Amino acid sequence: MNYSTMQRLRYNYKPKMPDVFYKDFASIKPEIGKSTAALTNQEELKELFPNTYGMPVIKFVEGKSGCTSKPLKFGVILSGGQAPGGHNVISGLYDALKKSNKNSKLYGFLYGPEGLVKGNYIEIKKELIDKYRNTGGFDIIGSGRAKIETEEQVADSIKNVKKLGLDALVIIGGDDSNTNAAFLAKYFIKAELHTKVIGVPKTIDGDLKNEYIEISFGFDTATKLYSELIGNICRDVNSARKYWHFIKLMGRSASHIALECALKTQPNVCLIGEELAEKKWTLKQVTEYITDIIVKRSQNGENFGVVLVPEGIIEFIPEMDELIEELNDLMAANAASFTKLKTFTGKLNWLKKKLSKKAFNLFDSLPETISLQLLMDRDPHGNVQVSRIETEKLLISLVTNKIKELKKEGKFNGKFSTYAHFFGYEGRSAFPSNFDSDYCYTLGFTAFLLAANGFSGYIASVQNLTDEVKYWQPYGVPLSMMMTMEKRKGKTVPVIKKSLIDLNGKPFKEFEKNRDNWAINTVYRFPGAIQYFGDSEVCEIPTKTLLLEKGNLKQKRKGKKAK
Amino acid sequence: MNYSTMQRLRYNYKPKMPDVFYKDFASIKPEIGKSTAALTNQEELKELFPNTYGMPVIKFVEGKSGCTSKPLKFGVILSGGQAPGGHNVISGLYDALKKSNKNSKLYGFLYGPEGLVKGNYIEIKKELIDKYRNTGGFDIIGSGRAKIETEEQVADSIKNVKKLGLDALVIIGGDDSNTNAAFLAKYFIKAELHTKVIGVPKTIDGDLKNEYIEISFGFDTATKLYSELIGNICRDVNSARKYWHFIKLMGRSASHIALECALKTQPNVCLIGEELAEKKWTLKQVTEYITDIIVKRSQNGENFGVVLVPEGIIEFIPEMDELIEELNDLMAANAASFTKLKTFTGKLNWLKKKLSKKAFNLFDSLPETISLQLLMDRDPHGNVQVSRIETEKLLISLVTNKIKELKKEGKFNGKFSTYAHFFGYEGRSAFPSNFDSDYCYTLGFTAFLLAANGFSGYIASVQNLTDEVKYWQPYGVPLSMMMTMEKRKGKTVPVIKKSLIDLNGKPFKEFEKNRDNWAINTVYRFPGAIQYFGDSEVCEIPTKTLLLEKGNLKQKRKGKKAK
Repeated sequence: MNYSTMQRLRYNYKPKMPDVFYKDFASIKPEIGKSTAALTNQEELKELFPNTYGMPVIKFVEGKSGCTSKPLKFGVILSGGQAPGGHNVISGLYDALKKSNKNSKLYGFLYGPEGLVKGNYIEIKKELIDKYRNTGGFDIIGSGRAKIETEEQVADSIKNVKKLGLDALVIIGGDDSNTNAAFLAKYFIKAELHTKVIGVPKTIDGDLKNEYIEISFGFDTATKLYSELIGNICRDVNSARKYWHFIKLMGRSASHIALECALKTQPNVCLIGEELAEKKWTLKQVTEYITDIIVKRSQNGENFGVVLVPEGIIEFIPEMDELIEELNDLMAANAASFTKLKTFTGKLNWLKKKLSKKAFNLFDSLPETISLQLLMDRDPHGNVQVSRIETEKLLISLVTNKIKELKKEGKFNGKFSTYAHFFGYEGRSAFPSNFDSDYCYTLGFTAFLLAANGFSGYIASVQNLTDEVKYWQPYGVPLSMMMTMEKRKGKTVPVIKKSLIDLNGKPFKEFEKNRDNWAINTVYRFPGAIQYFGDSEVCEIPTKTLLLEKGNLKQKRKGKKAK
Repeated sequence: MNYSTMQRLRYNYKPKMPDVFYKDFASIKPEIGKSTAALTNQEELKELFPNTYGMPVIKFVEGKSGCTSKPLKFGVILSGGQAPGGHNVISGLYDALKKSNKNSKLYGFLYGPEGLVKGNYIEIKKELIDKYRNTGGFDIIGSGRAKIETEEQVADSIKNVKKLGLDALVIIGGDDSNTNAAFLAKYFIKAELHTKVIGVPKTIDGDLKNEYIEISFGFDTATKLYSELIGNICRDVNSARKYWHFIKLMGRSASHIALECALKTQPNVCLIGEELAEKKWTLKQVTEYITDIIVKRSQNGENFGVVLVPEGIIEFIPEMDELIEELNDLMAANAASFTKLKTFTGKLNWLKKKLSKKAFNLFDSLPETISLQLLMDRDPHGNVQVSRIETEKLLISLVTNKIKELKKEGKFNGKFSTYAHFFGYEGRSAFPSNFDSDYCYTLGFTAFLLAANGFSGYIASVQNLTDEVKYWQPYGVPLSMMMTMEKRKGKTVPVIKKSLIDLNGKPFKEFEKNRDNWAINTVYRFPGAIQYFGDSEVCEIPTKTLLLEKGNLKQKRKGKKAK
């Protein structure tokens, strides 16, 4: 046997579920709410999704259900980047299917949506699922970033779904994958398939969140792991007292990860993309903001510190965003002539002629390594690959230059020495925390019950997540009500709105209130490693963002009882 | 209160100790062994340490002791890089002092040995130590890399020790710091001070190890944390199936960290510096070795993998080591003219004239970013700062070029995309594992008992570490017997021998036996986060290196009982 002790012990963990899910499925009632409407562009969306628009929210409560108990066949797809807990959605789904009827079957499509298009799948049986319970990664069936968009892809998907006789298809993914799920639901109904389509909200970035979705799965585990490492670095700088560590964190479209980690560890600087965009800060202003804190700390004899940088930050700084847009367009329009330019000087001269003056001046002011990264190969959508750009090193370079200036002017007498980090990949496939284990398993059950009760075009949702698990409330939410119309790649298309940090929301306000203290005074917090065993006090620590947004329901309940 | 849950709960952890240490100090007998001799150069070392050479090994057993119970004053110094458990050595020392006599006092010298030279110290009292029990980092008193070497430094140290009336000085550090401790012991005796000097073996690198020292503290925690992250990356590559991750690990002088992490996680490639040196491999051979595995895996459809690279690797590759030596010498001898060269081309032309042809050709073949890193500022000893050199990126660059060649020749049809990591600073200040918590606390007690029983020039040692803690055996080992003479910076000086990986030892043999399987087949292991609570099965997992070297005494004991 080649399993680590942790792996062996995690196989035996029994995920907790809301009380209602321990009932017989015939006694779990899908309570039907009022019909819903999209966030914006209601008429357009109604037209785009004629057969799923306006459906009601579903709440699962104790009561009589018409849920079938005949054998069912479900398919499941993992879509996009890994997030801790994916295996538990699948094990929840599997257990619910087998609880409903022991002859029910679960098929896993391999390597993402592509597996459905190509008819590439395996049956998920007991021996297999038991090796993946409560473990990280998406390796049980692999994942992929393909979308099912073209007519041909849709036709192939329908063919494969028919061939297997699937009663439901569960798509575990982020905002784009769930948008794709909404389309599939529509196409399946149109094709008169009885196959229901259910989405499950996944992303460590935390930007798939709204009135009905309190948190996407994986965010809890990933931010705990990053905070462990950041806390360790904080302790290290406070011991060695001679380095500034610049730490880049994942989060391209939103800075939720950085904000949560900052609330957990209290670093000296944490940049928030949404704030920089709102204030329209330039790179120069960001540099001055960080430098100012370095100078003040140095005056206190503390030539050390920790800076958190969300990876998406450069797209939030308006001038950088404009530069990147210009570069994307130029490189797409002139791909052939651009790739012929072999030297950096050659590229620079070419860009001088083609870029706007403002954009070129900014480009020319950047360190060469960063300029080269901005000119790297684009992703399949023609976008620069943000996680490949060493933003943390860009800031180090700019701040170092600023510090040199100040030294010359006699305004800085301290020392300034740096290290750069990028924490990302090490958190996407960690063993899911007990929270993510329980949450994902419950999401798997919810997805099953939605489809088994005949709903399609829904996303599984669980609320009251800051309460004890037994009081969690499972819902089904129509995907169409979470949609809006946005311009993507030049076309206006329906999308699930990405949740950015609300600068008036409690998590940001809490950060804003404290950051000047954290900047100058050394008041780091050290969360330590994720604990999976022992008391709930240590192995069920809720996410700060969620606690601030939703309040601590567990504590409130206890408070009530105490009265 | 600004403590994390983990921190609060770790304050309450009671470190375990060997049974004998629960006795009254009057009932713990320092059993005196035979007189000892140095590893090599006995005559020279005897002359260098006339008053401490040849002392016996001390074994602490139950029995009558002449240990004093009058109030004592101890000083303690943290020296060099952080290692998890330093705070527990100090809390063990504190508790032993207070157990001996509640009026005993412990002083902490601030920011390393410099604190002793400058007389910069604090008294460590209950309120302070209670905030640092079982926590990571060296922030209780800070650390530093200074040595006490010059006559003036020694004189100042003696003056400050006298002023405080110290009965003992405990130095927590690596091989160099313990060599320094051996010298201080000699100087203090010569100056007729009654102050005893005791060393404690610290380093995450694991290279302070010998017949008497089974493991240095911090190695267990740091390798567990790195292995957690490596395991997560392994899971990630096996899910996404599209990246090769090259991970640099700490370990400049020896590759113990990489070997332990490889044994825990079973990656596709792990380079071992000692082996490359033994086989006299060139960079080209290393590149070909890695590329060959990438090609084979690609033929199996697996265009992904994980490569571990110890940071010291470039000094183990003979041709690189020669190049670095030549550069160090050149830059030291021509510092003024070298710093005048502003452009890379200018430097390159200068080096072409000055370096040997072989060295220049190698230098010229490296990627420019690496060449620039090789020319960066030297450390205070005139050495290149190895941890600043992105060896993982050097290998990525060389392998990428090789893969391009193979593609052109039609010998590689797969994809090759990479990510680079350096895991180091995030592990040095982690919360110590239960093993390191117990081990360090026991080392603190051992250091106290050695000094309180009148021994000086000793290092604290605990053996039988793979057994249950109650059976651990504390010792005192004369520092002089661990010494040898080595050439450092052109002078032959006494040093504590660094322990390199023994290529005939069991840990390397175990790795060698399995690595071809790990390379081609995907058999990653996922150790997960360090667990501090719950069953000993999960929170007291022994280090693989130690288990292979010493055998599993706990299991043997159980086996005996069962018979």
